[in-house]
Formats: sequence, C-alpha cells, structure tokens
Amino acid sequence: MGTTMHAIRQTGSNGPSSLHWGTTERPHPGDGEALVRITHAGVNRADTLQAQGHYPPPPGVTDILGLEGAGLIEDPNNGTRPDGTPWKAGDEVAFLLSGGGYAEYAAVPHGQLLPIPAGFGLEQTASVVEVACTVWSNICMTAHLREGQRILFHGGGGGIGLFGIQLAKALGATVATTAGSAEKLATCQEYGADILINYREEDFAGVLAGCGGVDVILDIIGAKYLARNIDALAPDGHLVIIGMQGGVRAELPINKLLAKRGNISATGLRYRDREDKARVVRETVSNVWPMLEDGRIRCHIDRVMPAEQAAAAHRALLSGEVTGKIVLKLPGAH
Amino acid sequence: MGTTMHAIRQTGSNGPSSLHWGTTERPHPGDGEALVRITHAGVNRADTLQAQGHYPPPPGVTDILGLEGAGLIEDPNNGTRPDGTPWKAGDEVAFLLSGGGYAEYAAVPHGQLLPIPAGFGLEQTASVVEVACTVWSNICMTAHLREGQRILFHGGGGGIGLFGIQLAKALGATVATTAGSAEKLATCQEYGADILINYREEDFAGVLAGCGGVDVILDIIGAKYLARNIDALAPDGHLVIIGMQGGVRAELPINKLLAKRGNISATGLRYRDREDKARVVRETVSNVWPMLEDGRIRCHIDRVMPAEQAAAAHRALLSGEVTGKIVLKLPGAH
Ligand SMILES: NC(=O)c1ccc[n+]([C@@H]2O[C@H](COP(=O)([O-])OP(=O)(O)OC[C@H]3O[C@@H](n4cnc5c(N)ncnc54)[C@H](OP(=O)(O)O)[C@@H]3O)[C@@H](O)[C@H]2O)c1
Ligand SMILES: NC(=O)c1ccc[n+]([C@@H]2O[C@H](COP(=O)([O-])OP(=O)(O)OC[C@H]3O[C@@H](n4cnc5c(N)ncnc54)[C@H](OP(=O)(O)O)[C@@H]3O)[C@@H](O)[C@H]2O)c1
Repeated sequence: MGTTMHAIRQTGSNGPSSLHWGTTERPHPGDGEALVRITHAGVNRADTLQAQGHYPPPPGVTDILGLEGAGLIEDPNNGTRPDGTPWKAGDEVAFLLSGGGYAEYAAVPHGQLLPIPAGFGLEQTASVVEVACTVWSNICMTAHLREGQRILFHGGGGGIGLFGIQLAKALGATVATTAGSAEKLATCQEYGADILINYREEDFAGVLAGCGGVDVILDIIGAKYLARNIDALAPDGHLVIIGMQGGVRAELPINKLLAKRGNISATGLRYRDREDKARVVRETVSNVWPMLEDGRIRCHIDRVMPAEQAAAAHRALLSGEVTGKIVLKLPGAH
Repeated sequence: MGTTMHAIRQTGSNGPSSLHWGTTERPHPGDGEALVRITHAGVNRADTLQAQGHYPPPPGVTDILGLEGAGLIEDPNNGTRPDGTPWKAGDEVAFLLSGGGYAEYAAVPHGQLLPIPAGFGLEQTASVVEVACTVWSNICMTAHLREGQRILFHGGGGGIGLFGIQLAKALGATVATTAGSAEKLATCQEYGADILINYREEDFAGVLAGCGGVDVILDIIGAKYLARNIDALAPDGHLVIIGMQGGVRAELPINKLLAKRGNISATGLRYRDREDKARVVRETVSNVWPMLEDGRIRCHIDRVMPAEQAAAAHRALLSGEVTGKIVLKLPGAH
C-alpha cells in the first residue's frame, strides 16, 4: 500500500482559485478509526467558506476540505456497523467527516461510518450524509418537531433545504420554504413544500405571522433574518440557526421572544465531539435511513463532477445556480 | 354572602402612589373556577411593574394586582385536588393567579389551586407559589437541569433567586449566583449557593467562563446581560430569560452562540393559557412540594405587612432592601 494519495490541496484562501488537485500523504487511521478509500465526496457550502479562509477545521483535523462521502472500507481497524456486525475490507460505506473528504482516502472515526441504504448507490449516499445528520439533529433532536406542526426552511432549493422539506413532510409537518427563484420554489414544491415564498418578492415574516406562525425554523441566514424569524415564530416556537450567510451579529428583541415564549438554538455539527457525532449518526441511520429506503426521501443531485474540478464545483455553488447537491467523483469510482 | 370586598385598587400608573385600599365587586367564579377567601397574598416584582403601567394583565383578567396567595376555599365549584379528591368549603389552599391576589376574594381556575405542604402555614405557602412554579417550569421543564450540572441565578437575594438556589441544590446542581451586596450574598450562601459573585465588584462572565461556564442561566436582567450571559455559558448551555430589568433589546452574537451550540429561551408564566398553567402547577406540586415538606427548600419571608400597606410593600421592594419575599396579610387572616 502506497503512502501518498491524490487530494484537493488548498493554497491561500481566495476561494475556488485556491484549490488544486495534487499529491499528499495518505492518512493513518488512529485508534477507533477505519481507513476508507473514497469514491464520492459531497460538496457543502461550508467547504466554500473554508476555501475562503473562514470556518477552519477543528483542532487536530486535516485541512483538506470535505465533510462527507462514500467509498470502500480499506482497513476496518475493528470497527462495527450500527447493528454490531464487523465492517470488512471492501464493504461499501458512507461517512461523516470533520474534514478530509476531497481525497482518495480518509481516516474515519468508527462512529461516523454509515451503511449504504438499500437501493442506494455510493454516489447518492455521498450526497445525503451531511444534510441528513444536520437536518435530523436540528429539527428532531434540538427542536423536537412533531406531527401536525409547521416548519420553515430558508433556502429550500439548497442541499439542506431540499432534504429538510422531505424529512419534515415524512414526519407529518406542514412545510414552508423560502428561495430566490420560481424555479427553485417549483422544485421545493415537487419535493413536498406546502407554502412557497420567493424571498426577493415577499416578506416571509408577514406571510407566516399572518397564518399563525411556524413552530420550528431551520435558519441558514443568521443576523439578517433574526428579527423577522422571531416575528414568524408561533407561541413556544423554536428558531434553530445553523448558518450565518447574512451576518453574525444582530439585535435580539427579547421582549418579543418572551411574549411568545420563544426559543433560539444555534448549532454546528462539525465542532461536536466524537461521541456526540456518533450519537447523531446513530439516530440518523435508525430514523432517516428507512425513509431513504422506502422512497419517502429522495436525493437530488444537481451534478456530478470529477474531484479534480472541485474549484469549478465551488464556483457553481457560489453562483447560486445549483439546486440540491454537487457530488465529486474520485478517480477510483467506476 | 355580600357582593363587595376590599382590595387594593390602582388609579393611574405612578407606581406605589397609585395603590389604594378600597371596595370593589367580589369576583364570580366562572366554569372551572373556585372562589377562594384570601388570607395572604405574595408580592412579586411583576406587581411593581404593573403598578407602573407596564406588564398588563392578559385579556379578560382582573386589573387587581397579585399573582399568588393562600386562603380558604369559599366555593369549590366542583374542583378537585391533584390527587383527585374534591376540594371542600373551608379547606386551606394556595393558588397561582394571572391577577387579583391583592383582594379578599379571588376566582381561581381549578388547575391553579395547590394544596398546603405538610408543615407549612398559609403565610409561608403564599410566599412560594409563584417562585416555585416559575423556577420549576424554567430550570426543569425548559432547560432540563440535571444532577452535576452548573446553574447561575442572577439576583440570588430576590424571591426567585433564593428559591432557585435551593431547588437547584436539591436537584444536585452546583449553584452560582450574583447579587449586589455582601449581605445578600451571605444569605445566598446560607441557602446553599456555591459560587458567590457581587455584580457591582466582579464581572460574572469572566469568573464563570474562567471555570468552564455554566450549563443553565436563569436570567432576570435581559438586554444588559445578554452578551455576557452567552460568554458565561458552557457548551450546549441554556440561557433562560424571565425578566428584563436591564432592557428589552440587545445585540446577539450569533457566532458565539453557534460556537458553543447555545440555547436561549424567554418565557413568561402569566401569559400561558389555563391548560399550560395547570400542567406547570401539577408538575410543581408533585416535584417541589416534597422538597418543602422534607425541608430541602425553606421559604424566606423578609416581612409580612397588612394588605392595606401594599404601596409601602412596593416601595420596599423597589428600594432593593428586601431579601426573599414580602407577604401581604388580608383582614380575614388571623
Ligand atoms: N451548522 C451546521 O451544522 C451546518 C451543517 C450544514 C450546513 N450548514 C449551513 O447551512 C447553510 C445551507 O447549506 P447548504 O449546503 O444547503 O447550502 P446551499 O446548497 O448552497 O444552499 C443554500 C441556499 O440558500 C439560498 N439562499 C441564499 N440567500 C438566501 C436568503 N436570503 N433567503 C433564503 N434563501 C437564501 C440559496 O439559493 P437562492 O438564493 O437562489 O434561493 C441556496 O439554495 C449554509 O450556510 C451552511 O454553512 C450548517
Ligand atoms: N417570566 C416569568 O414568568 C417571571 C416570573 C416571576 C418573576 N419574573 C421576573 O424575575 C425577576 C425577579 O423577580 P423577583 O420576584 O425575584 O424580584 P425581586 O425579589 O425584586 O429580586 C430581584 C433581585 O435582582 C437583584 N438585582 C437587581 N439588579 C441586578 C443585576 N444587575 N444583577 C444581578 N442582580 C440584580 C436585586 O437585588 P440586588 O441588586 O440588591 O442584588 C433583587 O434581589 C423580575 O424581573 C420578575 O419580573 C418573571
């Protein structure tokens, strides 16, 4: 077994133009980690932030981009599946990472290995790991969305949004979503969204407050939407902020929050510790994987590109032209 | 039975000087309400706000001040105790109100009647209803405080604070508290507080962040402490805001909240609906009353005053000289 591999390397922090296909050392799995040969890596907006010099990896984690993917077990190193049976070399597998997905190999903590859902391929699975874990942990573990409640997803045409819409529908919620174009909203509707709001034309807070408010909001905008999100909440509602595309500081109207007994959480999957991530992965596999297997949730891949073209993938995502996910294909994929 | 009663009436909104002892109509219990002859009424900071023209009663509720008290059942109107046995005329009882406590009689929703804890008198019980329901609902039902965690109470020498310190200790938490004087902090320590911070001399956020942060904060200050409260939170911590003595709007550092996966809730007991209040009362009686009966929590009454002197009671509370609670004694009390 060689000691080098191909990967996307980053020089500087100028976004896409900092990314180059090159050679680097192959990772050595430590205690409690398997070595995986990657065939497909999911692209996330967080990766574009990291390429711009924001959102650094947690201490001790590789600076190679990439938070999710799928491939084949190269060395299980005693890892076991969620059902307790051992992983074996050659098994197909998906994984959640704190970094290192844009590469031919990754060392993956055992608790972050996920089985391939029945009927799914590696490419499809690579596109859902990060969004499934993020959406499940936030709308279920943090906000406890229940059947019959209403939820709002901002950016319904994005990776998180399209997945979230379907998961919330599968849980029996009524789903509202915002997006910036009629095309993206049409796709949101295809995947089940009930209330469609073009944020360039309508004030989402007015629309939603007008019909009684929403119980849960999964927000990716942060500062710019803080006050309006609180206006859009129903009594006892829960705003969960996972992205700050609209800034990191804003005035909080505490009196309005108190008047509706509102709740705000802000969370990040990447900085959870290993044990916590394993818990999220376990719950996601046991609750969300069955929804993938019976078709309640489908993956929506906008395009698949060779990993060498990661820079072009980032440019596409940043341009706003992408609906759903981009997947990178590593050289070893067939 | 007469149709009038004595009560504290409010003319204008100039605080204490608006309050006068006078005569008004006796309340008529509606469906699902008992009539109680009040012997003791608890005084709360919220009452001082209402007398200043802030914090109006919910729609349909009397404008007479007073959120809690104790007395004798005059007409049970088919109400039953938490254990299912019927309330009878003449029974001693305590109650939680949305308004109307500074009076000889009140109509009380059945779900807001509480038994008198064994070993407690009416005066003592009148002093703990509102704080017990508030502290239990916030630190347990909202923030899920667990054994071994750390909690911060701001204003530890106040009604909420002294009760909260004891309840949190009984639950096995480590308790930090702020107060504005060495005397109040000494009282907090007597009741079990572990970490004592004079907010006039020390920066609580610095002290607490320096020792790893706190899992739960029960905050009564609002805007002025928002940023510092977030600095003082431990990872996955929960800030619960129940008072806004320091203002109603402040900048929220969303990035800091996200970095520690923090949670913020803002709640008010008074505006919950009847069903919700009944649930809070039920949980409080079943969880907190045993702690009163076995001495794990004691009440701390600073002074008992005739109800006619409500204005003086408010002046005392506003001056900051009060530790714990003030109780008003109605003419019918012996
Ligand atoms: N904290 C965590 O654990 C975590 C995990 C995963 C993702 N995230 C964050 O979640 C966000 C979404 O991630 P993603 O991978 O789904 O990104 P994505 O695929 O790029 O989707 C983002 C979507 O937001 C829409 N959008 C942009 N401005 C908007 C606005 N003002 N109002 C409503 N929608 C707007 C964009 O399209 P249109 O403007 O054309 O509608 C786009 O579809 C990112 O900020 C990411 O960093 C956080
Ligand atoms: N939302 C709800 O459901 C609910 C229910 C009950 C009470 N509350 C609110 O909770 C708060 C406390 O009520 P209470 O009845 O306990 O009032 P209280 O008895 O008057 O106690 C308030 C305490 O806060 C202290 N304090 C004042 N400024 C402070 C500061 N900057 N930092 C720390 N402590 C400070 C005061 O004394 P020192 O300054 O001398 O230390 C006093 O002991 C009030 O704002 C009330 O409206 C809300």
